[in-house]
Amino acid sequence: MATAVAVAVAPWKQLLVNAMQLNSNLKHSSYFQLATIGSNGRPSNRTVVFRGFEQEESNKIQINTDYRSSKIEDLKHCRFAEICWYFTDSWEQFRINGTVDIIDAFNPDPVKLQQRAKAWFAGSPRSRLQYLGPSPGLPYISEEQKQEYSLDPATGPVHAFCLLVLDPEQVDYLNLKSNQRLSFQSMQTDDGGKCWKTEKVNP
Amino acid sequence: MATAVAVAVAPWKQLLVNAMQLNSNLKHSSYFQLATIGSNGRPSNRTVVFRGFEQEESNKIQINTDYRSSKIEDLKHCRFAEICWYFTDSWEQFRINGTVDIIDAFNPDPVKLQQRAKAWFAGSPRSRLQYLGPSPGLPYISEEQKQEYSLDPATGPVHAFCLLVLDPEQVDYLNLKSNQRLSFQSMQTDDGGKCWKTEKVNP
Repeated sequence: MATAVAVAVAPWKQLLVNAMQLNSNLKHSSYFQLATIGSNGRPSNRTVVFRGFEQEESNKIQINTDYRSSKIEDLKHCRFAEICWYFTDSWEQFRINGTVDIIDAFNPDPVKLQQRAKAWFAGSPRSRLQYLGPSPGLPYISEEQKQEYSLDPATGPVHAFCLLVLDPEQVDYLNLKSNQRLSFQSMQTDDGGKCWKTEKVNP
Repeated sequence: MATAVAVAVAPWKQLLVNAMQLNSNLKHSSYFQLATIGSNGRPSNRTVVFRGFEQEESNKIQINTDYRSSKIEDLKHCRFAEICWYFTDSWEQFRINGTVDIIDAFNPDPVKLQQRAKAWFAGSPRSRLQYLGPSPGLPYISEEQKQEYSLDPATGPVHAFCLLVLDPEQVDYLNLKSNQRLSFQSMQTDDGGKCWKTEKVNP
Protein backbone atom coordinates (compact mmCIF):
# COMPACT_ATOMS: atom_id res chain seq x y z
CA MET A 1 0.00 0.00 0.00
CA ALA A 2 1.41 3.37 -0.97
CA THR A 3 1.83 5.86 1.83
CA ALA A 4 0.29 9.25 1.20
CA VAL A 5 2.82 12.06 1.57
CA ALA A 6 1.15 15.03 3.18
CA VAL A 7 2.16 18.39 1.73
CA ALA A 8 1.67 20.46 4.84
CA VAL A 9 1.01 24.16 4.34
CA ALA A 10 3.85 25.85 6.19
CA PRO A 11 2.87 27.75 9.36
CA TRP A 12 4.61 30.94 8.05
CA LYS A 13 2.60 30.92 4.82
CA GLN A 14 -0.57 32.39 6.33
CA LEU A 15 1.51 35.21 7.88
CA LEU A 16 2.98 35.94 4.43
CA VAL A 17 -0.41 35.82 2.68
CA ASN A 18 -1.80 38.20 5.33
CA ALA A 19 1.13 40.61 4.86
CA MET A 20 0.63 40.60 1.08
CA GLN A 21 -3.04 41.43 1.60
CA LEU A 22 -2.31 44.15 4.18
CA ASN A 23 0.16 45.82 1.79
CA SER A 24 -1.63 45.11 -1.50
CA ASN A 25 -2.35 48.81 -2.06
CA LEU A 26 1.37 49.28 -2.75
CA LYS A 27 2.66 48.14 -6.15
CA HIS A 28 6.09 47.45 -4.65
CA SER A 29 4.68 45.07 -2.04
CA SER A 30 5.23 42.20 -4.50
CA TYR A 31 8.94 43.07 -4.85
CA PHE A 32 11.58 41.40 -2.72
CA GLN A 33 15.36 41.04 -2.65
CA LEU A 34 16.98 37.77 -3.69
CA ALA A 35 20.49 37.01 -2.43
CA THR A 36 22.68 34.42 -4.11
CA ILE A 37 26.40 33.58 -4.12
CA GLY A 38 28.39 34.49 -7.21
CA SER A 39 30.99 32.20 -8.74
CA ASN A 40 33.54 34.77 -7.47
CA GLY A 41 32.52 33.82 -3.91
CA ARG A 42 30.83 37.15 -3.23
CA PRO A 43 27.21 37.64 -2.26
CA SER A 44 24.88 39.09 -4.88
CA ASN A 45 21.56 40.83 -4.22
CA ARG A 46 18.80 42.22 -6.45
CA THR A 47 15.13 43.10 -6.47
CA VAL A 48 12.79 40.61 -8.15
CA VAL A 49 9.01 40.20 -8.39
CA PHE A 50 6.90 37.59 -6.59
CA ARG A 51 5.08 35.52 -9.24
CA GLY A 52 2.92 33.45 -6.92
CA PHE A 53 3.23 30.11 -5.25
CA GLU A 54 3.84 27.05 -7.41
CA GLN A 55 0.30 25.87 -6.68
CA GLU A 56 -2.27 27.21 -4.27
CA GLU A 57 -1.44 24.58 -1.65
CA SER A 58 2.34 24.75 -2.24
CA ASN A 59 4.92 26.71 -0.21
CA LYS A 60 7.27 27.13 -3.19
CA ILE A 61 7.83 30.65 -4.49
CA GLN A 62 8.01 31.53 -8.21
CA ILE A 63 10.22 34.17 -9.83
CA ASN A 64 10.58 34.95 -13.54
CA THR A 65 14.00 35.83 -14.87
CA ASP A 66 16.11 36.17 -17.98
CA TYR A 67 18.22 33.09 -18.56
CA ARG A 68 21.09 35.38 -19.61
CA SER A 69 21.11 37.29 -16.28
CA SER A 70 23.96 36.71 -13.86
CA LYS A 71 21.68 35.20 -11.20
CA ILE A 72 21.42 32.05 -13.36
CA GLU A 73 25.21 31.67 -13.31
CA ASP A 74 25.13 32.25 -9.53
CA LEU A 75 22.43 29.63 -8.99
CA LYS A 76 24.11 27.05 -11.21
CA HIS A 77 27.21 27.49 -9.06
CA CYS A 78 25.26 27.42 -5.75
CA ARG A 79 21.56 26.54 -5.50
CA PHE A 80 21.01 28.27 -2.17
CA ALA A 81 19.27 31.66 -2.01
CA GLU A 82 17.69 33.90 0.59
CA ILE A 83 14.72 36.15 -0.05
CA CYS A 84 14.39 39.26 2.10
CA TRP A 85 10.84 40.60 1.79
CA TYR A 86 10.10 43.78 3.70
CA PHE A 87 6.54 45.08 3.77
CA THR A 88 6.75 48.85 4.08
CA ASP A 89 3.19 49.43 5.31
CA SER A 90 2.88 46.74 7.98
CA TRP A 91 6.58 46.76 8.99
CA GLU A 92 6.93 43.01 8.58
CA GLN A 93 10.01 41.22 7.28
CA PHE A 94 10.25 37.68 5.94
CA ARG A 95 13.65 36.11 5.35
CA ILE A 96 13.12 32.93 3.33
CA ASN A 97 16.08 30.61 2.82
CA GLY A 98 15.94 27.65 0.48
CA THR A 99 17.11 25.96 -2.69
CA VAL A 100 16.22 27.16 -6.16
CA ASP A 101 15.11 25.04 -9.10
CA ILE A 102 16.02 26.56 -12.49
CA ILE A 103 13.36 25.75 -15.08
CA ASP A 104 14.70 26.80 -18.49
CA ALA A 105 13.81 25.81 -22.05
CA PHE A 106 16.03 22.71 -21.86
CA ASN A 107 14.43 21.21 -18.76
CA PRO A 108 13.82 17.48 -19.40
CA ASP A 109 10.69 17.34 -17.20
CA PRO A 110 7.48 17.97 -19.25
CA VAL A 111 5.54 18.96 -16.10
CA LYS A 112 8.13 21.65 -15.32
CA LEU A 113 8.10 22.87 -18.92
CA GLN A 114 4.33 23.22 -18.62
CA GLN A 115 4.80 25.17 -15.39
CA ARG A 116 7.25 27.47 -17.24
CA ALA A 117 4.76 28.01 -20.09
CA LYS A 118 2.03 28.83 -17.55
CA ALA A 119 4.31 31.44 -15.92
CA TRP A 120 5.08 32.91 -19.36
CA PHE A 121 1.41 33.36 -20.26
CA ALA A 122 0.63 34.77 -16.80
CA GLY A 123 2.85 37.75 -17.65
CA SER A 124 1.57 40.64 -19.78
CA PRO A 125 2.38 40.54 -23.53
CA ARG A 126 4.37 43.74 -23.00
CA SER A 127 6.51 42.27 -20.21
CA ARG A 128 7.35 39.28 -22.45
CA LEU A 129 9.10 41.58 -24.93
CA GLN A 130 12.00 42.23 -22.53
CA TYR A 131 13.19 38.66 -23.12
CA LEU A 132 13.75 39.52 -26.78
CA GLY A 133 16.02 42.46 -25.93
CA PRO A 134 19.80 42.39 -25.72
CA SER A 135 21.57 40.40 -22.96
CA PRO A 136 21.12 42.07 -19.56
CA GLY A 137 24.34 43.38 -18.02
CA LEU A 138 26.30 43.40 -21.27
CA PRO A 139 27.65 46.70 -22.62
CA TYR A 140 24.92 48.81 -24.18
CA ILE A 141 25.14 49.22 -27.95
CA SER A 142 22.79 51.93 -29.11
CA GLU A 143 22.03 50.27 -32.46
CA GLU A 144 20.66 47.19 -30.70
CA GLN A 145 18.35 49.29 -28.56
CA LYS A 146 16.69 50.94 -31.52
CA GLN A 147 15.26 47.63 -32.64
CA GLU A 148 11.50 47.24 -32.21
CA TYR A 149 10.37 43.88 -30.92
CA SER A 150 7.01 42.22 -31.41
CA LEU A 151 5.63 38.88 -30.35
CA ASP A 152 2.43 37.01 -31.19
CA PRO A 153 0.47 36.78 -27.87
CA ALA A 154 -0.13 33.08 -28.58
CA THR A 155 3.62 32.32 -28.86
CA GLY A 156 4.99 30.23 -26.01
CA PRO A 157 8.04 31.10 -23.88
CA VAL A 158 11.13 32.29 -25.75
CA HIS A 159 14.52 30.73 -24.96
CA ALA A 160 15.62 33.54 -22.64
CA PHE A 161 12.59 33.12 -20.37
CA CYS A 162 13.37 31.21 -17.22
CA LEU A 163 11.27 30.26 -14.21
CA LEU A 164 12.90 30.00 -10.79
CA VAL A 165 11.18 28.05 -8.02
CA LEU A 166 12.44 28.55 -4.48
CA ASP A 167 11.69 25.76 -2.02
CA PRO A 168 11.78 27.32 1.48
CA GLU A 169 13.65 25.45 4.20
CA GLN A 170 14.01 28.14 6.83
CA VAL A 171 11.95 31.29 7.43
CA ASP A 172 12.58 34.16 9.81
CA TYR A 173 9.63 36.45 10.49
CA LEU A 174 10.02 39.83 12.16
CA ASN A 175 7.20 42.21 13.02
CA LEU A 176 8.58 45.66 13.81
CA LYS A 177 5.24 46.98 15.09
CA SER A 178 4.74 44.28 17.73
CA ASN A 179 8.50 43.67 18.01
CA GLN A 180 7.98 39.93 17.66
CA ARG A 181 10.13 37.45 15.83
CA LEU A 182 9.46 33.86 14.85
CA SER A 183 11.83 31.28 13.44
CA PHE A 184 10.51 28.45 11.25
CA GLN A 185 12.66 25.44 10.44
CA SER A 186 11.64 22.66 8.06
CA MET A 187 12.36 19.02 8.80
CA GLN A 188 12.04 15.89 6.71
CA THR A 189 9.39 13.47 7.98
CA ASP A 190 9.73 9.66 7.87
CA ASP A 191 7.33 9.44 4.90
CA GLY A 192 9.39 11.85 2.77
CA GLY A 193 7.19 14.83 3.58
CA LYS A 194 8.13 18.03 5.34
CA CYS A 195 7.12 19.42 8.69
CA TRP A 196 7.87 22.75 10.32
CA LYS A 197 9.18 23.62 13.77
CA THR A 198 8.18 27.08 15.01
CA GLU A 199 10.11 28.95 17.67
CA LYS A 200 9.69 32.39 19.19
CA VAL A 201 13.07 34.15 19.21
CA ASN A 202 14.43 37.48 20.43
CA PRO A 203 13.98 40.33 17.91
CA MET B 1 58.05 64.20 -1.01
CA ALA B 2 54.86 62.46 -0.01
CA THR B 3 52.34 61.93 -2.77
CA ALA B 4 48.84 63.15 -2.01
CA VAL B 5 46.25 60.37 -2.38
CA ALA B 6 43.11 61.75 -3.91
CA VAL B 7 39.87 60.41 -2.41
CA ALA B 8 37.68 60.78 -5.45
CA VAL B 9 33.96 61.04 -4.88
CA ALA B 10 32.52 58.09 -6.78
CA PRO B 11 30.44 58.92 -9.88
CA TRP B 12 27.51 56.82 -8.55
CA LYS B 13 27.36 58.74 -5.27
CA GLN B 14 25.53 61.77 -6.67
CA LEU B 15 22.92 59.45 -8.20
CA LEU B 16 22.44 57.83 -4.78
CA VAL B 17 22.22 61.16 -2.95
CA ASN B 18 19.63 62.34 -5.52
CA ALA B 19 17.58 59.16 -5.06
CA MET B 20 17.62 59.60 -1.28
CA GLN B 21 16.38 63.16 -1.69
CA LEU B 22 13.69 62.19 -4.22
CA ASN B 23 12.36 59.51 -1.86
CA SER B 24 12.94 61.29 1.46
CA ASN B 25 9.20 61.60 2.13
CA LEU B 26 9.16 57.84 2.74
CA LYS B 27 10.50 56.60 6.07
CA HIS B 28 11.52 53.29 4.48
CA SER B 29 13.68 55.01 1.85
CA SER B 30 16.65 54.71 4.23
CA TYR B 31 16.19 50.93 4.51
CA PHE B 32 18.10 48.53 2.29
CA GLN B 33 18.87 44.83 2.12
CA LEU B 34 22.30 43.54 3.04
CA ALA B 35 23.39 40.17 1.68
CA THR B 36 26.26 38.23 3.25
CA ILE B 37 27.48 34.63 3.15
CA GLY B 38 26.85 32.48 6.22
CA SER B 39 29.46 30.11 7.63
CA ASN B 40 27.16 27.32 6.37
CA GLY B 41 27.90 28.51 2.82
CA ARG B 42 24.40 29.86 2.25
CA PRO B 43 23.49 33.42 1.37
CA SER B 44 21.87 35.52 4.06
CA ASN B 45 19.77 38.65 3.53
CA ARG B 46 18.15 41.18 5.86
CA THR B 47 16.87 44.75 5.99
CA VAL B 48 19.14 47.32 7.66
CA VAL B 49 19.15 51.11 7.99
CA PHE B 50 21.47 53.52 6.19
CA ARG B 51 23.39 55.50 8.84
CA GLY B 52 25.14 57.91 6.52
CA PHE B 53 28.47 58.01 4.77
CA GLU B 54 31.64 57.67 6.85
CA GLN B 55 32.39 61.34 6.18
CA GLU B 56 30.73 63.79 3.85
CA GLU B 57 33.38 63.30 1.16
CA SER B 58 33.64 59.52 1.66
CA ASN B 59 31.92 56.79 -0.39
CA LYS B 60 31.83 54.35 2.54
CA ILE B 61 28.41 53.39 3.90
CA GLN B 62 27.65 53.04 7.63
CA ILE B 63 25.29 50.52 9.26
CA ASN B 64 24.65 50.00 12.97
CA THR B 65 24.16 46.48 14.24
CA ASP B 66 24.13 44.28 17.32
CA TYR B 67 27.43 42.50 17.77
CA ARG B 68 25.50 39.38 18.80
CA SER B 69 23.52 39.23 15.52
CA SER B 70 24.34 36.50 13.03
CA LYS B 71 25.54 38.99 10.38
CA ILE B 72 28.70 39.53 12.47
CA GLU B 73 29.48 35.81 12.33
CA ASP B 74 28.81 35.91 8.57
CA LEU B 75 31.12 38.89 8.03
CA LYS B 76 33.90 37.44 10.17
CA HIS B 77 33.75 34.37 7.94
CA CYS B 78 33.53 36.39 4.68
CA ARG B 79 34.00 40.17 4.49
CA PHE B 80 32.13 40.60 1.21
CA ALA B 81 28.59 41.96 1.18
CA GLU B 82 26.12 43.34 -1.33
CA ILE B 83 23.58 46.04 -0.59
CA CYS B 84 20.41 46.09 -2.66
CA TRP B 85 18.70 49.45 -2.23
CA TYR B 86 15.42 49.89 -4.04
CA PHE B 87 13.74 53.30 -4.00
CA THR B 88 10.00 52.67 -4.23
CA ASP B 89 9.01 56.16 -5.36
CA SER B 90 11.60 56.82 -8.08
CA TRP B 91 11.95 53.16 -9.17
CA GLU B 92 15.72 53.22 -8.86
CA GLN B 93 17.87 50.32 -7.67
CA PHE B 94 21.44 50.45 -6.42
CA ARG B 95 23.39 47.23 -5.94
CA ILE B 96 26.52 48.05 -3.99
CA ASN B 97 29.16 45.35 -3.60
CA GLY B 98 32.15 45.75 -1.32
CA THR B 99 34.02 44.70 1.78
CA VAL B 100 32.83 45.39 5.30
CA ASP B 101 34.88 46.66 8.22
CA ILE B 102 33.54 45.52 11.62
CA ILE B 103 34.12 48.19 14.25
CA ASP B 104 33.30 46.69 17.64
CA ALA B 105 34.28 47.59 21.22
CA PHE B 106 37.60 45.72 20.90
CA ASN B 107 38.83 47.55 17.81
CA PRO B 108 42.49 48.53 18.37
CA ASP B 109 42.22 51.72 16.25
CA PRO B 110 41.31 54.79 18.39
CA VAL B 111 40.04 56.67 15.31
CA LYS B 112 37.64 53.84 14.53
CA LEU B 113 36.51 53.67 18.15
CA GLN B 114 35.74 57.36 17.96
CA GLN B 115 33.77 56.76 14.76
CA ARG B 116 31.80 54.04 16.60
CA ALA B 117 31.06 56.40 19.51
CA LYS B 118 29.89 59.07 17.06
CA ALA B 119 27.51 56.57 15.44
CA TRP B 120 26.21 55.58 18.88
CA PHE B 121 25.39 59.14 19.90
CA ALA B 122 23.82 59.83 16.48
CA GLY B 123 21.09 57.29 17.35
CA SER B 124 18.15 58.19 19.56
CA PRO B 125 18.42 57.31 23.28
CA ARG B 126 15.43 54.99 22.77
CA SER B 127 17.09 53.10 19.89
CA ARG B 128 20.19 52.55 22.06
CA LEU B 129 18.15 50.50 24.54
CA GLN B 130 17.77 47.60 22.08
CA TYR B 131 21.46 46.80 22.58
CA LEU B 132 20.75 46.06 26.26
CA GLY B 133 18.06 43.49 25.42
CA PRO B 134 18.53 39.74 25.11
CA SER B 135 20.64 38.27 22.26
CA PRO B 136 18.84 38.60 18.90
CA GLY B 137 17.86 35.30 17.29
CA LEU B 138 18.13 33.27 20.51
CA PRO B 139 15.04 31.54 21.91
CA TYR B 140 12.68 33.98 23.58
CA ILE B 141 12.40 33.64 27.35
CA SER B 142 9.47 35.67 28.63
CA GLU B 143 11.14 36.54 31.97
CA GLU B 144 14.01 38.25 30.16
CA GLN B 145 11.59 40.36 28.14
CA LYS B 146 9.86 41.76 31.19
CA GLN B 147 13.01 43.52 32.25
CA GLU B 148 12.96 47.31 31.89
CA TYR B 149 16.16 48.84 30.56
CA SER B 150 17.43 52.34 31.09
CA LEU B 151 20.58 54.13 30.01
CA ASP B 152 22.11 57.49 30.87
CA PRO B 153 22.04 59.52 27.59
CA ALA B 154 25.68 60.52 28.23
CA THR B 155 26.85 56.88 28.41
CA GLY B 156 29.01 55.80 25.47
CA PRO B 157 28.44 52.72 23.30
CA VAL B 158 27.63 49.49 25.12
CA HIS B 159 29.53 46.31 24.22
CA ALA B 160 26.81 44.94 21.92
CA PHE B 161 26.85 48.06 19.72
CA CYS B 162 28.76 47.56 16.52
CA LEU B 163 29.41 49.80 13.53
CA LEU B 164 29.75 48.29 10.07
CA VAL B 165 31.44 50.27 7.30
CA LEU B 166 30.99 49.04 3.74
CA ASP B 167 33.63 50.13 1.24
CA PRO B 168 32.00 49.94 -2.23
CA GLU B 169 33.99 48.32 -5.04
CA GLN B 170 31.28 47.75 -7.62
CA VAL B 171 27.94 49.48 -8.09
CA ASP B 172 25.10 48.59 -10.43
CA TYR B 173 22.48 51.30 -10.98
CA LEU B 174 19.12 50.57 -12.58
CA ASN B 175 16.43 53.14 -13.33
CA LEU B 176 13.14 51.40 -14.06
CA LYS B 177 11.43 54.60 -15.22
CA SER B 178 13.98 55.45 -17.92
CA ASN B 179 14.99 51.77 -18.32
CA GLN B 180 18.68 52.72 -18.04
CA ARG B 181 21.41 50.80 -16.30
CA LEU B 182 24.93 51.83 -15.40
CA SER B 183 27.78 49.72 -14.10
CA PHE B 184 30.52 51.30 -11.94
CA GLN B 185 33.74 49.46 -11.25
CA SER B 186 36.46 50.71 -8.91
CA MET B 187 40.12 50.40 -9.76
CA GLN B 188 43.26 51.00 -7.73
CA THR B 189 45.34 53.91 -8.97
CA ASP B 190 49.15 53.99 -8.96
CA ASP B 191 49.19 56.35 -5.96
CA GLY B 192 47.09 53.95 -3.83
CA GLY B 193 43.86 55.84 -4.49
CA LYS B 194 40.75 54.61 -6.21
CA CYS B 195 39.19 55.56 -9.50
CA TRP B 196 35.91 54.49 -11.07
CA LYS B 197 35.12 53.17 -14.52
CA THR B 198 31.53 53.83 -15.67
CA GLU B 199 29.82 51.77 -18.34
CA LYS B 200 26.30 51.86 -19.75
CA VAL B 201 24.93 48.30 -19.82
CA ASN B 202 21.73 46.63 -21.00
CA PRO B 203 18.91 46.70 -18.39
